[in-house]
Amino acid sequence: MSVTAARGFRASGVTAGLKASGRPDVALVVNDGPLQSAAGVFTSNRFPAAPVLWSRQAVLDGELHAVVLNSGGANACTGAEGFADTHRTAEHVADSLRRAGRDTGAGEIAVCSTGLIGQRLPMDRLLPGIEVAVGALAAGGGDDAAVAIMTTDTVPKTAVVEREGFIVGGMAKGAGMLAPGLATMLVVLTTDAVADAATLEPALRSATRMTFDRIDSDGCMSTNDTVLLLASGASGVTPGAAELAAAVTAVCQDLALQLIRDAEGASKDIRIDVVHAASEDDALEAARAVSRSNLLKCAIHGEDPNWGRVLSALGTTTAAFEPDTVDVAMNGVWVCRAGGVGEDRSLVDMSSREVTLTIDLQAGESAATVWTNDLTAAYVHENSAYST
Amino acid sequence: MSVTAARGFRASGVTAGLKASGRPDVALVVNDGPLQSAAGVFTSNRFPAAPVLWSRQAVLDGELHAVVLNSGGANACTGAEGFADTHRTAEHVADSLRRAGRDTGAGEIAVCSTGLIGQRLPMDRLLPGIEVAVGALAAGGGDDAAVAIMTTDTVPKTAVVEREGFIVGGMAKGAGMLAPGLATMLVVLTTDAVADAATLEPALRSATRMTFDRIDSDGCMSTNDTVLLLASGASGVTPGAAELAAAVTAVCQDLALQLIRDAEGASKDIRIDVVHAASEDDALEAARAVSRSNLLKCAIHGEDPNWGRVLSALGTTTAAFEPDTVDVAMNGVWVCRAGGVGEDRSLVDMSSREVTLTIDLQAGESAATVWTNDLTAAYVHENSAYST
Repeated sequence: MSVTAARGFRASGVTAGLKASGRPDVALVVNDGPLQSAAGVFTSNRFPAAPVLWSRQAVLDGELHAVVLNSGGANACTGAEGFADTHRTAEHVADSLRRAGRDTGAGEIAVCSTGLIGQRLPMDRLLPGIEVAVGALAAGGGDDAAVAIMTTDTVPKTAVVEREGFIVGGMAKGAGMLAPGLATMLVVLTTDAVADAATLEPALRSATRMTFDRIDSDGCMSTNDTVLLLASGASGVTPGAAELAAAVTAVCQDLALQLIRDAEGASKDIRIDVVHAASEDDALEAARAVSRSNLLKCAIHGEDPNWGRVLSALGTTTAAFEPDTVDVAMNGVWVCRAGGVGEDRSLVDMSSREVTLTIDLQAGESAATVWTNDLTAAYVHENSAYST
Repeated sequence: MSVTAARGFRASGVTAGLKASGRPDVALVVNDGPLQSAAGVFTSNRFPAAPVLWSRQAVLDGELHAVVLNSGGANACTGAEGFADTHRTAEHVADSLRRAGRDTGAGEIAVCSTGLIGQRLPMDRLLPGIEVAVGALAAGGGDDAAVAIMTTDTVPKTAVVEREGFIVGGMAKGAGMLAPGLATMLVVLTTDAVADAATLEPALRSATRMTFDRIDSDGCMSTNDTVLLLASGASGVTPGAAELAAAVTAVCQDLALQLIRDAEGASKDIRIDVVHAASEDDALEAARAVSRSNLLKCAIHGEDPNWGRVLSALGTTTAAFEPDTVDVAMNGVWVCRAGGVGEDRSLVDMSSREVTLTIDLQAGESAATVWTNDLTAAYVHENSAYST
């Protein structure tokens, strides 16, 4: 049910004709209230796409009425014309919703786009598509919406958690350029909890910090990443801040792992646990460096427990550790002990989809986990021909 | 002629049996003087291999008599035993040279190793191989030496420049884990110029900073990178410091480009020129970020002028620029102007082996060039099966 699992929301996913494939490409999520609270987290890329610039502004007042999302074009690096297109999109959603009896304005509509950078959106198709999307809005439309935001994704990604009296649900798209960060990661989360923007904002920030910020598919940060959280209050239940944050984090974690599992060309999901770090920052720096080693990602694709490539990546970081006390396990076998040869590497079974690396820095009590995936010929093929 | 183009040097390349392939795997370079000056630059990886630890120490006094290099094993992450193996190797070279009538000691012998990390070297083969290498030393042995240091290299790499009265020559190996950085980059440079270590050191440092430090094949830094410069003084000519530095830089630049051209699986050499940066550091940061974008490297492999992937990589840097004034050219066509759509991307011809990206930050007067290569299915294949 994705974004319509929580009460107070309607959604739809339709085909506007933006994609050459003719697949669904416009999704709409509307919050029918009674509350309209919202929070957002956006890419830190210095070339934010037009829809990112727009949506950042729209959510500033802590309120959103609807989110419109399109695949088939990122509307990034499209200058003032691109921004005007986003503005027109939001106006058109507001107008169409008003004609359908919903009082709203463009400033309450977030816009998300994904696809190729540097091309204008075909507005002559998008705008009529929006009208179709408004007409198709339904309380059970969450799954259609999740399909309409797919690009190179092979499956739609949705998640729902139900807690004492309230629900958090969500949908995500993204299969490459995740760091966190083409094709892009777009996520819309909805909840029927009673919560104002001041409660949603920290909940969303802490959730994304521990989930979407800790997956790294290919080290490439998108211009369009957007994560939005909308609360309708339709449950009438006001959870504690920690309870709400935990539920939001659970949905984000579920969606984040779905993104990694569907990463472009990937055949292995790689969990990197750094333990006994001097600080969480150190643990994260170490995990990220390892997650970005093309050589290691190739080795894991080949089911080769090449722990030397783990150390050579660790050795580029500033994390506190003594090189001769670092231990590394691959799927539970400590192939590297004290910075040197450990247990027999032939004991490592790497045939499973999920591969776990444990890196013990022996430098403190902090830890962090980052997820990545292997680097495959399929990734190369997919990304050599993306725009052609 | 590689390392024996300059007078005063002998070299050899022989088969000790370290490589399963049975190809040559031990090289030896001997400086017959009259001078024995030397300088070295080593990996900044925090897991330096045993031969790096050894050679750093050996060159500290500004003098080296010989360099022994082996492929077929990196002797990295092999602990105290690995270091003892390197020590024994140096002792064995010194002993063998003394038996051949050359007065020397282990402390004057640099050792370089390349191959798989985390495995001890088969000393029972290496040591007899060294004796064969000593017996094979010849004034024309430079080319044999260049062959014996190859790992995944498809061609030996050598370069020579001749200047007014003196010569600088060199050999290099390296095809992956260049940043600058498995398989590793090993370089030995020789000159017959009269120069002491105090002159060689800054010449080598400035040369590597502008050449080997500005190629980035796959973002992975090796544990074994070593660049050594030996001067025999046999020409009797004492060049000016600037003249010598320029000659060393020319040889390094030639070798560096040979490394990129032979990078694992590569089908394109990519030159990234960042111009009008506020500082050289900014230019380098920007160029390096772009050189490490897997998505861009895949696009170029597909001959797709996907400039959006250039901007999304630039957007992750701290270099000074205004996003709406950045221009990007691909092979001379300014496909991105002012951070948005520029000339028609179909005008870009990317069929040549060399592809040039020009990134104009419009922020100052500094510039830097970094070389990288495309990311291909062949790279993935080669590195999925390296140790198996």
